[in-house]
Amino acid sequence: MTATSFTAAELAERFSLALHGDGGVRIGGVATLARAEDGQLAFLANSRYRPQLAASRASVVVLREADADAAPGTVLIAKDPYAAFAKIASLFDARPVRAAGVHASAAIDPSARVAAGAHVGPFVSIGANSVVEDGCVIGPGCVIGEDCVVGAGSELIARVTLVKRVRLGQRVLIHPGAVLGADGFGLAMDGGRWLKVPQLGGVSIGDDCEIGANTTIDRGALEDTVLEEDVRLDNQIQIGHNVHIGAHSAMAGCSAAAGSARIGRYCLIGGGAGVLGHLEVCDKVVVTAMSLVTGSITEPGEYSSGTPLTDNRTWRKNAARFKQLDTLARRVLAADKE
Amino acid sequence: MTATSFTAAELAERFSLALHGDGGVRIGGVATLARAEDGQLAFLANSRYRPQLAASRASVVVLREADADAAPGTVLIAKDPYAAFAKIASLFDARPVRAAGVHASAAIDPSARVAAGAHVGPFVSIGANSVVEDGCVIGPGCVIGEDCVVGAGSELIARVTLVKRVRLGQRVLIHPGAVLGADGFGLAMDGGRWLKVPQLGGVSIGDDCEIGANTTIDRGALEDTVLEEDVRLDNQIQIGHNVHIGAHSAMAGCSAAAGSARIGRYCLIGGGAGVLGHLEVCDKVVVTAMSLVTGSITEPGEYSSGTPLTDNRTWRKNAARFKQLDTLARRVLAADKE
Amino acid sequence: MTATSFTAAELAERFSLALHGDGGVRIGGVATLARAEDGQLAFLANSRYRPQLAASRASVVVLREADADAAPGTVLIAKDPYAAFAKIASLFDARPVRAAGVHASAAIDPSARVAAGAHVGPFVSIGANSVVEDGCVIGPGCVIGEDCVVGAGSELIARVTLVKRVRLGQRVLIHPGAVLGADGFGLAMDGGRWLKVPQLGGVSIGDDCEIGANTTIDRGALEDTVLEEDVRLDNQIQIGHNVHIGAHSAMAGCSAAAGSARIGRYCLIGGGAGVLGHLEVCDKVVVTAMSLVTGSITEPGEYSSGTPLTDNRTWRKNAARFKQLDTLARRVLAADKE
Repeated sequence: MTATSFTAAELAERFSLALHGDGGVRIGGVATLARAEDGQLAFLANSRYRPQLAASRASVVVLREADADAAPGTVLIAKDPYAAFAKIASLFDARPVRAAGVHASAAIDPSARVAAGAHVGPFVSIGANSVVEDGCVIGPGCVIGEDCVVGAGSELIARVTLVKRVRLGQRVLIHPGAVLGADGFGLAMDGGRWLKVPQLGGVSIGDDCEIGANTTIDRGALEDTVLEEDVRLDNQIQIGHNVHIGAHSAMAGCSAAAGSARIGRYCLIGGGAGVLGHLEVCDKVVVTAMSLVTGSITEPGEYSSGTPLTDNRTWRKNAARFKQLDTLARRVLAADKE
Repeated sequence: MTATSFTAAELAERFSLALHGDGGVRIGGVATLARAEDGQLAFLANSRYRPQLAASRASVVVLREADADAAPGTVLIAKDPYAAFAKIASLFDARPVRAAGVHASAAIDPSARVAAGAHVGPFVSIGANSVVEDGCVIGPGCVIGEDCVVGAGSELIARVTLVKRVRLGQRVLIHPGAVLGADGFGLAMDGGRWLKVPQLGGVSIGDDCEIGANTTIDRGALEDTVLEEDVRLDNQIQIGHNVHIGAHSAMAGCSAAAGSARIGRYCLIGGGAGVLGHLEVCDKVVVTAMSLVTGSITEPGEYSSGTPLTDNRTWRKNAARFKQLDTLARRVLAADKE
Repeated sequence: MTATSFTAAELAERFSLALHGDGGVRIGGVATLARAEDGQLAFLANSRYRPQLAASRASVVVLREADADAAPGTVLIAKDPYAAFAKIASLFDARPVRAAGVHASAAIDPSARVAAGAHVGPFVSIGANSVVEDGCVIGPGCVIGEDCVVGAGSELIARVTLVKRVRLGQRVLIHPGAVLGADGFGLAMDGGRWLKVPQLGGVSIGDDCEIGANTTIDRGALEDTVLEEDVRLDNQIQIGHNVHIGAHSAMAGCSAAAGSARIGRYCLIGGGAGVLGHLEVCDKVVVTAMSLVTGSITEPGEYSSGTPLTDNRTWRKNAARFKQLDTLARRVLAADKE
């Protein structure tokens, strides 16, 4: 634990925030409004929690101008308190230093190239013709196969696999268990048996992308599977071969995009949601949790499928009627005609 | 294979079960009623399978008092035959012995502490300030990061990752590929680009929890993600940051709880089901498979969403009508008024 | 990169295809119709893309007889152009050679047996009584536990775990992160606490199966979990204990089969779809994406559940009416009687 601390005035200056109250208050950490102790900074992003301000023991609160009057103590005014809080909190995120150098146990192909400024941890294997650029951290147990590039400043936390032909941009962050560049799921039926369709493409990941734990991104069949820059994938997401995801889109845990789906820029795909193969989803589309996109979407906006949760007894009765829905509708329309 | 065996009388005494029939019958293994051979013990927990008793070749059957008359041979009477069977079966579960000691290949930070009675397998890495307590088994390829605690008697089967600030209670069992303590999915939009929100919390897992293969449990943003004691998670489950799960709850495969969701005690979450973020689910709630919890639940009971499966042709017709459901309902209600 | 190339006539002969045009055209790779360059071969499997033929720069196109007249250049005629293309493309799939032998870092139990012709990569551990047969490739970071068999010619790409009692047939291909043979999810409630039910079975995988990245297949409770030959599983699939999947069936990403489900031969299970426990699905059943099979299926055909995607505002109105569906139906039926 380092004893990092900043005064409210220092934070105001560093992040260009207006300060109301005592600029000399010293902050040694961050917390929620409800749990903050003396010496900690909290934030209020949603006015719904405004009543918590009075009781909070936080020494400083980051909030919107409109909420400032409800805070009894020192405040920092931000247009977007959550983003301002994120920046301040990052000052207290003590990330372990990974010294440059290659661990003695690492198994590196002679044709691979690891920059002098990169860190390669224990039990890492790196295959033929792969490149790890400067400032990268390759954590314990990672496997990098053939013909891969890990762009400068990228970090593979631990036990990440890049199978082959995976090219990461700069500052890409990948969490444990993620598998990039496995064979896409390409099969042809041939005389009553499956025939494997070779997957000759690769995976291309743009700068500043983040890939969650146990997420899988398959290699393309003929061309690449592509994530443009600043795409953020949560855990346990499945991206099929030849999918293309536009810049600044984010997908929540357990969602999936099937082969050759094309998702635009600034899209938000909810947890457990799915996009069928070969569809196009335009920019700025929000898909709510566990919805299934079954046709291309050409208008920005929020989309949903599914039915609401009820107690099981009620659900059974309604679900049984869903099976008769077309018949019921025909009766209603016929009665209307009469 | 060890030649473990017990007489029916020995089992009756060991597990306080009533015995009907020949107490000297010797049991060398367990099986289903349908497949049991001579010398094996089977169980009948569901009276639906009662007709199988007559034909079964099992030498001993564990069952309820009420089913005893239908069994031709030796029986052990239990209030809960499945639980009694589980206890008996565990006598035949030959688990490999893992000798205490650290494998020569393990990479352990000098500041980490491994109890003398713990087993640490090949290709394990343990980071700064982490502790592995007595009687633990850390299987091949596990990665334990910084500031983690593995409580006494816990077992990480193989290739488990504890990223950082993960504290396991005693006798916790974690299956391969699970990732605990990865960054929660915290993002703020800032000038058209995503800003990563630091994840400063940890993960706290209570005594006797079990975590399935390839399940992911993220670290909290400011406070911990918490599983109370005796929580049982199946495979491929996703637990977002700051989720809290009450004691004795169980979640089936591929289910998920989004950030800050709070699930009570003795809950059962079905396979593929989801709980949205920031919701509260009270104690003793059952959510059926692939249902989505979209609001807090305050009453114990069984809850469901979704529609029943039909042939695709029928489904298409009914699904098309779902799009008109509000219009149809208005017509019905208007006709009623007339 | 090897400079593999073939003339159109050589390909025609090798794969028994009829040739129209210049048999001397030389092919050095494969591509899509839209992206093919001079010297590449493309295919047309779906007549919908027929208009692309005129503009394609592909030197040779594989297509059906019926589409041949629309192609300006050299063509190879196939009954199933996609299967023919798969075979041709495999000629250009330069897979890295893995020399026979065991990497110095591998940790192999003295009682395990590795065939002389097998490749075992770095950081692999192999437990007691396990067998790796001839021609196998065990990639970096794989963990093979006790009592496993890896059949001749099988490949575990990297970081695959076979926990225990897992028997693979011949030519099985397993992608990174997959976990086979973890404990099935067996629990009994006993005095207010969960009691673990021992999982004494194994996993049996038939010849020519393929298992995707991060897919999990649990060990059976008393008997085995079984995949017959030529079953193809995509990524992130969950197969519960004692599931049985018939030959030549395929499951798409994120789908799941719960404990003791029985899926027939030549079935296709869509992405994210689920099959509840103890159900039987007969041969030649197609389940569409994200559908839930809640009862046994006895007739071949296509099956679906769920509701169609709409904009969120429309969805909210219709979803609210779903809760009243039984009441509405009763009114319609009552009105009809009148």
